[in-house]
Amino acid sequence: MANASPINTTVPVHTGDTVMKIEQVIHQARRAARELSTLSGAVRNGVLEGMAAGLLVHADAILAANAADVQQAKRENLSTAMVSRLTLTPQKIQAMAQSIRQIAQQVDPVGQAIEASERPNGLRIEKRRVPIGVIAIIYESRPNVTSDAAALCLKSGNACILRGGKESLGTNLAIANVIQEALGSSGVDAAAVQVLSTTDRAAVTALVTAQGAVDLVIPRGGESLIRAVVEQATVPVIKHYKGVCHVYIDKDADADMAINIAYSAKVDGCAVCNTAECILVHKDIAARVLPRLAARYRQAGVQMRADPRILGLLQDAKLAVESDWGQEFLDLIVAIKQVTSVDEAISHIAQYGSQHTDAIITTNIATAQKFVQQVDSASVMVNASTRWADGYEYGLGAEIGISTDKLHARGPMGAADLCTYKFIVTGNGHIRA
Amino acid sequence: MANASPINTTVPVHTGDTVMKIEQVIHQARRAARELSTLSGAVRNGVLEGMAAGLLVHADAILAANAADVQQAKRENLSTAMVSRLTLTPQKIQAMAQSIRQIAQQVDPVGQAIEASERPNGLRIEKRRVPIGVIAIIYESRPNVTSDAAALCLKSGNACILRGGKESLGTNLAIANVIQEALGSSGVDAAAVQVLSTTDRAAVTALVTAQGAVDLVIPRGGESLIRAVVEQATVPVIKHYKGVCHVYIDKDADADMAINIAYSAKVDGCAVCNTAECILVHKDIAARVLPRLAARYRQAGVQMRADPRILGLLQDAKLAVESDWGQEFLDLIVAIKQVTSVDEAISHIAQYGSQHTDAIITTNIATAQKFVQQVDSASVMVNASTRWADGYEYGLGAEIGISTDKLHARGPMGAADLCTYKFIVTGNGHIRA
Repeated sequence: MANASPINTTVPVHTGDTVMKIEQVIHQARRAARELSTLSGAVRNGVLEGMAAGLLVHADAILAANAADVQQAKRENLSTAMVSRLTLTPQKIQAMAQSIRQIAQQVDPVGQAIEASERPNGLRIEKRRVPIGVIAIIYESRPNVTSDAAALCLKSGNACILRGGKESLGTNLAIANVIQEALGSSGVDAAAVQVLSTTDRAAVTALVTAQGAVDLVIPRGGESLIRAVVEQATVPVIKHYKGVCHVYIDKDADADMAINIAYSAKVDGCAVCNTAECILVHKDIAARVLPRLAARYRQAGVQMRADPRILGLLQDAKLAVESDWGQEFLDLIVAIKQVTSVDEAISHIAQYGSQHTDAIITTNIATAQKFVQQVDSASVMVNASTRWADGYEYGLGAEIGISTDKLHARGPMGAADLCTYKFIVTGNGHIRA
Repeated sequence: MANASPINTTVPVHTGDTVMKIEQVIHQARRAARELSTLSGAVRNGVLEGMAAGLLVHADAILAANAADVQQAKRENLSTAMVSRLTLTPQKIQAMAQSIRQIAQQVDPVGQAIEASERPNGLRIEKRRVPIGVIAIIYESRPNVTSDAAALCLKSGNACILRGGKESLGTNLAIANVIQEALGSSGVDAAAVQVLSTTDRAAVTALVTAQGAVDLVIPRGGESLIRAVVEQATVPVIKHYKGVCHVYIDKDADADMAINIAYSAKVDGCAVCNTAECILVHKDIAARVLPRLAARYRQAGVQMRADPRILGLLQDAKLAVESDWGQEFLDLIVAIKQVTSVDEAISHIAQYGSQHTDAIITTNIATAQKFVQQVDSASVMVNASTRWADGYEYGLGAEIGISTDKLHARGPMGAADLCTYKFIVTGNGHIRA
């Protein structure tokens, strides 16, 4: 296994003949999808176990490929954050293997009966979960997406076409080799998982416009990547846009709880999509909560940007400007605003939020219910940190991402969300005359 | 109530300033959606009851408006089929009212708990059904879509923007007046249902590209309408493409049952999307089934287009040409083909079908299971006619259409399919450190 040599099971696609070759990739994926939909859960889990074991066995080869990618990224002066996302360690590879094993242990979504009923005329109607078919995933620098996405697609009986960032190509192809070995050992079509070895943008265009051949596109990465995919796509897209998450501290909040949650939701993971970017505080509790919260934020090096009415309560805070509301900082920066009611908090979230995850801290059940009903976000937290919005924490085993869409899947998406369903109608000669 | 005068609650949109005005329509819809999501089921059902009663009370005005539309359509030499779809009768208006009452009687999908669990750390995770928000429906000549779509959207707590065909504009505005009266009587925001009085195509473009403001677009009508919407849309679209439905008569079929189903699936409703367009017959049963089936088809005036191997069994059949396979005839025409195995039937359906509805007639359970698993269609029938694929027959009360998509909703779509969900996570100060 080497990162430099082309891997025979991934199709090399070069500028000039991109569309032709991508058509071949898609054609192979469709064939594989048909086989996958008929495989037992045991066979699919066998591939996952093979992948997990293979990642550990071939860890050195993957790390070598990754070191070359990282070196190149540094030569090209990529940002520290990007290099950090790109860099693998033995521990990260172990975590990737562990994640695959957790996916394998989940309940098999394929073939589950979602609903079943018998109609008055005797027809039996069953709604059964089935794979979607062919899923294209377009992502950026994190190489663990390659193994996570492949594992979730296999678990849900889908063929996938993976197109990672060019900065992680060597690493992704090394991981692809492990996946191919696992598919081969289980006798499953190699085209069940295809990692593109091209970084040509025309390949993305071809994938996202392959109506009827590619069933779903999931772009994962920065907002510009996702918008570019949406603009071009005629295939359905599930989007994973930004998280501009709010914590609203109600007048009836437990002050200690509110401080702990507002602090932790920013500081314990400030660069992830479910971090709190904005704290809204009811005016009646501001004086009790904000000075202590500010002291803790200062200690952690958090920069506070506050509205003028509460600047005096927040030592070292800067005056917020309009663009700070609705901003996804992904850093040790937090916006803080005073509101006069839960309604104002709800309106602020409607105007500036990203419908990802928003929290209320309150002991008042009526206020909590109002917030839960009126905040139109994928996850609404009551007395809990926004940081809990996560597929693993919700019991999904792992997640393909956190959907900010409302169609098909919303919030953390697991293997079952990569399924569709079919109606199976059984009669005894029933005609409809 | 008159068909000619503009209705004050629908916004007149004229060429030249379409985009501005449509933005206003969308803005109002978003405001209404926020109110709708908080209304009780009783209030929403009250509007539906008002609509049903109003249709009957104002039937004469609606029929008058419709008569004017029909007259104009005839002057413009629209096709007989289109004029027939456009034409209302007192019976059709009664059926529209009845359909709304059935929708009102359905279980309220809004607020239903889909799943709930408690995690080991004590967090409670609830997945709760909620309205999608603002739904735009773009359709052609059938005026009953106006009342059905409005009713299903209200039932599911969504605001809707309805844009019907220009040939039915007068009728649609008369129906819109009834809807406005019902909304007003219940004190619900008039913008909950907005029927566009423009037929300018720029209005459609504005709707389908209003990302973040319109949540879902459902085009209903011919394939060209749907393709045009998909090409332009950046808002998610659920498509209702054509139905090229197959009936496969297995070698182990009960011959009488097979003949009855193949006959009825074509003849009892030959112009609807779930009619059978192609009969596949196993070679071992062809001689027993086809001559009798052909006799019944002939009697009903069905034109048969058959493959050469079975022409001799089908009196008066014509030789099929390649384009007959996969053709949506929507007429008293049927394609008939002999296959040598269930696998060949499955392959034929994969190649030529439209993933709408396909049936197998067999007494062999293993063959039935294989067909059910491998035919990738929204509805798969076993010993039942394809004509049963219908929201009402599946127990959904009524349908907004039959989705040929795999994402979000597949097959017949009812009110629950016009909902998304949110995760509600309740803790007791839970932080994720």
